[in-house]
Amino acid sequence: MSEDLSIPVQMENLVRRKQKEIVEGLESLGTSKFKADTWVRGETGGGGTSMVLQEGTTFEKAGVNVSAVYGSLPPQAIARMKADHKTLVTNGDGSLKFFACGLSLVIHPYNPHAPTTHLNYRFFETWNEDGTPQTWWFGGGADLTPSYLYEEDAKLFHQNHKDALDKYDKSLYPEFKKWCDDYFYIKHRGETRGIGGIFFDDFNTKPAEEILKIVESCFDAFLPSYLPIVARRKDMPFTEEEKKWQQLRRGRYVEFNLILDRGTQFGLQTPGSRVESILMSLPLTASWMYDHHPEEGSREDKLLKVLKNPIEWVE
Amino acid sequence: MSEDLSIPVQMENLVRRKQKEIVEGLESLGTSKFKADTWVRGETGGGGTSMVLQEGTTFEKAGVNVSAVYGSLPPQAIARMKADHKTLVTNGDGSLKFFACGLSLVIHPYNPHAPTTHLNYRFFETWNEDGTPQTWWFGGGADLTPSYLYEEDAKLFHQNHKDALDKYDKSLYPEFKKWCDDYFYIKHRGETRGIGGIFFDDFNTKPAEEILKIVESCFDAFLPSYLPIVARRKDMPFTEEEKKWQQLRRGRYVEFNLILDRGTQFGLQTPGSRVESILMSLPLTASWMYDHHPEEGSREDKLLKVLKNPIEWVE
Repeated sequence: MSEDLSIPVQMENLVRRKQKEIVEGLESLGTSKFKADTWVRGETGGGGTSMVLQEGTTFEKAGVNVSAVYGSLPPQAIARMKADHKTLVTNGDGSLKFFACGLSLVIHPYNPHAPTTHLNYRFFETWNEDGTPQTWWFGGGADLTPSYLYEEDAKLFHQNHKDALDKYDKSLYPEFKKWCDDYFYIKHRGETRGIGGIFFDDFNTKPAEEILKIVESCFDAFLPSYLPIVARRKDMPFTEEEKKWQQLRRGRYVEFNLILDRGTQFGLQTPGSRVESILMSLPLTASWMYDHHPEEGSREDKLLKVLKNPIEWVE
Repeated sequence: MSEDLSIPVQMENLVRRKQKEIVEGLESLGTSKFKADTWVRGETGGGGTSMVLQEGTTFEKAGVNVSAVYGSLPPQAIARMKADHKTLVTNGDGSLKFFACGLSLVIHPYNPHAPTTHLNYRFFETWNEDGTPQTWWFGGGADLTPSYLYEEDAKLFHQNHKDALDKYDKSLYPEFKKWCDDYFYIKHRGETRGIGGIFFDDFNTKPAEEILKIVESCFDAFLPSYLPIVARRKDMPFTEEEKKWQQLRRGRYVEFNLILDRGTQFGLQTPGSRVESILMSLPLTASWMYDHHPEEGSREDKLLKVLKNPIEWVE
């Protein structure tokens, strides 16, 4: 990555390179290939490429999207963003010129012993009316959503992401780990969506060049955190009951994404956004049983207990 | 129904009677029975009975709930309600004593040719600090969500509900039919959830006794509107592709209920509410495919066209 380039250009290069690398990594675990779907954001500006795999050999549904969009944010969108991003200042005419670029992925394997994962890293910036930069930040993270808990999987995922952050600043992992547990908390269920990972937003308290390096380090941590897990789980035998439990957990995943995920809500409410890319995160299949409770002491119950009381997976 | 009783008591009697009648009607279409689940609303007051059938012979998931709850609404709940109910006045201490009673049902049959249906009728009232009645209203409706369009089904459902309303006031059906199309519009998809029916809220522009009779008339219209449809569709042969299409339509149903339904959102955000009863509306199974579009001119496409441009089913 050439440091002569501006941060937005470097970020866009990074996400495109990582999209290719991650897609190739995931394809190495089965015989199915991703399909590219390139789209442009009509009236406004920018576009993206969704790499999608559906009903594959290992993955039931997987999407790895990059997008780089720019334009003018409408006042309602600004109002919603301000709640999370205090540094945002509206221009005189109530609008705001912005650029946003990121990679977002969700992977749902078939095997109930292989966990779902989600990753997203993004850069956002705005300009003043005179064209000078106004504010910017990075946001993102990566997290794991197993239907069955394997401690070694949870530890591998967390350790790799901790190492990626520790290289730059040892205070980051504890902060981002807690942020992840808090963000993915499904309040009406009293449980987290999965066993966490890292999450951060509004990150601009270090020089942008340095944060970009941290983001790259987190990106680098992803494949070594996830591929070994899927490799050892994807061909495990499973029962019909285990598959049903996975479907119920996917129902919870849908609940989080549709009711609570701020990115999804923001996206669906923003005119001109691409609904298919936003809802690509939803699993191919999900299920809801009335008042389902796993048997006390069962493996299903053990997972729930961890989701109700998040664990520190690494020292 | 004795007219000597107060409206809340008459409404509670009505919904309990209708719960029994509807459950028996639905049970007559298969060999599976509903199970009763009675719950009490701990700290606050009231409770209900959920009648639930899962993985039956005809119905994949069906729930017929009654509830009668009372207590004090917290200020945030009042703020949300005020947006829809302008007659609501907060008491001096910011709270509001209320009573709410209703029946709510959602039925998801197995056969993709048999439509999902939803019905809900409710009465709500509040009191002033001195114990005198403050405001009240009725709300509710019934609507049909087919995966495959059968015009005779749509006409039967609408005609019966129109007749039920016409008996009292011929201006009601056109108003409530449009309200239903508007309410169940999934904005981010540009389509309605189903082929409509009737919907109303904040209804207090006639004497309560008269509205209660109208509600009873709508209740009476339900079984004759729905049972004959399921009876003629439940054993129709269907292909795997048709089942897949039904699952995709159920995904849209989930999207509406989790993202847009005000009752669901209000319920999930209200402390002490019963999550299982609220989310009982979700189907046993649902599916999301990336960027799925039915073939032009196919039966699936014909349904979508109607969902994008609601039809007047009866004169």
